[in-house]
Amino acid sequence: MKNLTYHPAVLAFRWTGTSLLVLEQKRLPRREEFIPCRTYEQVARSIRDMSVRGAPAIGCAAAYGVALAARQKNFKTVPEWVSYLRKVKKVLAATRPTAVNLFWALNRMEACWTTALLERGEGKNLGAALSRRLAAEADGIFREDFEGNLRMGRYGAALLKKGSVILTHCNAGSLATAGHGTALGVIRTAHRLGKVKKVFVDETRPYLQGARLTAWECHREGIPYELITDNMAGHFMKTERIDAVIVGADRIAANGDTANKIGTYSLSVLARFHGIPFYVAAPRSTVDLSIPDGSHIPIEERSRDEVVRVGNTCIAPPRVVARHPAFDVTPSRHIAAIVTDVGVVRSPYGAGLRRIKGV
Amino acid sequence: MKNLTYHPAVLAFRWTGTSLLVLEQKRLPRREEFIPCRTYEQVARSIRDMSVRGAPAIGCAAAYGVALAARQKNFKTVPEWVSYLRKVKKVLAATRPTAVNLFWALNRMEACWTTALLERGEGKNLGAALSRRLAAEADGIFREDFEGNLRMGRYGAALLKKGSVILTHCNAGSLATAGHGTALGVIRTAHRLGKVKKVFVDETRPYLQGARLTAWECHREGIPYELITDNMAGHFMKTERIDAVIVGADRIAANGDTANKIGTYSLSVLARFHGIPFYVAAPRSTVDLSIPDGSHIPIEERSRDEVVRVGNTCIAPPRVVARHPAFDVTPSRHIAAIVTDVGVVRSPYGAGLRRIKGV
Repeated sequence: MKNLTYHPAVLAFRWTGTSLLVLEQKRLPRREEFIPCRTYEQVARSIRDMSVRGAPAIGCAAAYGVALAARQKNFKTVPEWVSYLRKVKKVLAATRPTAVNLFWALNRMEACWTTALLERGEGKNLGAALSRRLAAEADGIFREDFEGNLRMGRYGAALLKKGSVILTHCNAGSLATAGHGTALGVIRTAHRLGKVKKVFVDETRPYLQGARLTAWECHREGIPYELITDNMAGHFMKTERIDAVIVGADRIAANGDTANKIGTYSLSVLARFHGIPFYVAAPRSTVDLSIPDGSHIPIEERSRDEVVRVGNTCIAPPRVVARHPAFDVTPSRHIAAIVTDVGVVRSPYGAGLRRIKGV
Repeated sequence: MKNLTYHPAVLAFRWTGTSLLVLEQKRLPRREEFIPCRTYEQVARSIRDMSVRGAPAIGCAAAYGVALAARQKNFKTVPEWVSYLRKVKKVLAATRPTAVNLFWALNRMEACWTTALLERGEGKNLGAALSRRLAAEADGIFREDFEGNLRMGRYGAALLKKGSVILTHCNAGSLATAGHGTALGVIRTAHRLGKVKKVFVDETRPYLQGARLTAWECHREGIPYELITDNMAGHFMKTERIDAVIVGADRIAANGDTANKIGTYSLSVLARFHGIPFYVAAPRSTVDLSIPDGSHIPIEERSRDEVVRVGNTCIAPPRVVARHPAFDVTPSRHIAAIVTDVGVVRSPYGAGLRRIKGV
């Protein structure tokens, strides 16, 4: 595969060794601006405010947040460290409820600090050593996500025929991950293999991740695309050829039910009605075997302001009553295949997902 | 029925006798501002720019435009008048291609000026007399639309049970008609009869008629509503109870296929999938028997700027490639009933629509 070492022009964040520079995605595409986070509290805020977003990217950012936390203190005893880092974990875990990669990454960081503290015991300068160790672990999560996405891209691209017209929702690209992307990573790889005729990019209200981020990524890389409003998807499925729908995921239950950005469920119904295969692309860390099906996935309700304001423009009357579920759940029977970093899983999903989780 | 003489707090336009004051709907809900139109060219522009929109409202406004045109000239001979008014008709007809009420209203105005000219022959001051006659005809179109909507409201409300949760798309309210509204007129009447528990209002990208206009009308009249983004409709159909979807129409073909605001087709698929009845509400003038089915309805493609800009905010990268079909076509098999000003038509639509057109 060409470009295995490909690095995207823009990363969602950069680790400097002493801080995490978070790309302020809310300002894109108008401005490329980095928020310097020197504390885990700043990282937590950047996740909560959606400056960094996308399930895998959130997981990575939170992991670096734990590494920063270790730099902020210099306790001498193990119990002090454990109690502090558990509090840090709790704060970072409370930022967003739906994406499971966040909790997965934080659990992995906890395993890391537990091992490190057990090995080193108590002593001076534990903070600096711990921080280095935790940063290395976060680097590992980052690298694995990136490399996993390259593999996912190849698995997914193999499902697409030459000249495909693909529809995608939200942004599951470089900006939502350590790099390359999940759903958009599949499209990216397929594009490099000459298989993509065109991508329909759902603008993805209310946050407009499609218009602001996916269109931008496509634009930068010369992937042919057309931006549409979310409500045009059915019309184009009926009147033009669409060969596949590919979306990312924030959490996949044990039976394959998938939580993803609001609008994904409607798309899955439309794809089913038009006989278009509907693919989910996500790393193994998105699979949550502790949840039997989609009804157990908590759906984040965000502020009505995010629906009612676009930039500086208020689009509705003052004191309007608005709803804002940020995600919805697509039942696994609507999903033709789940593309992961270790291969493609098909129905029945239960067995396949357990296999890739090594259970 | 109470409130038969109900007049909405806000009308899409007001005829002063010498000008048409057009409510600038693009500024709503921030500002209530009227554009004074003293010439038919100004009326044409207000339709083309979507200052006035909604199929029945466009028809009414164009009719008053013809009345204004007669005031602008003072020809002495019938051939001069005929040639001029035909040009006026052509200009007004070219403003928007999809809604058929426009052409219906203009044909009716042509019949009016033809009769008037035949009766009066040639002479001085024909312009003033003609204008009065044409204004009276436009008044008739206005009044009939308004009264028809009140009847439509009662026919439609009878289809709804007490405590209904209704989803609507775009704005088919007072602002889209002479008053009361078609789809929102049904909801309005049902609300007065105590039948409406809640209305889900699709924001309706890209022009946001739902957020800007329908939410505003609901707000003013105390109709309980929740504004949602278009891509939430499927999620709420699945997770909450929705009893009916009601939308307006821009053109209904002889077989019942219905062109309406982009997003309507997707909604019809979602409603069908969830077993929710999908109703279309429109006056007889929206039915176009000259067109056998929806594939013959011209779909207006509008500027990509209308997708890419929200207020002053550009939501996508510069030079983004965007699509903007303003309408889509819902096949009649997705429609549970068409509610008109003369009663409810059900499948098979061909016979029912011919009956109400008196053919």
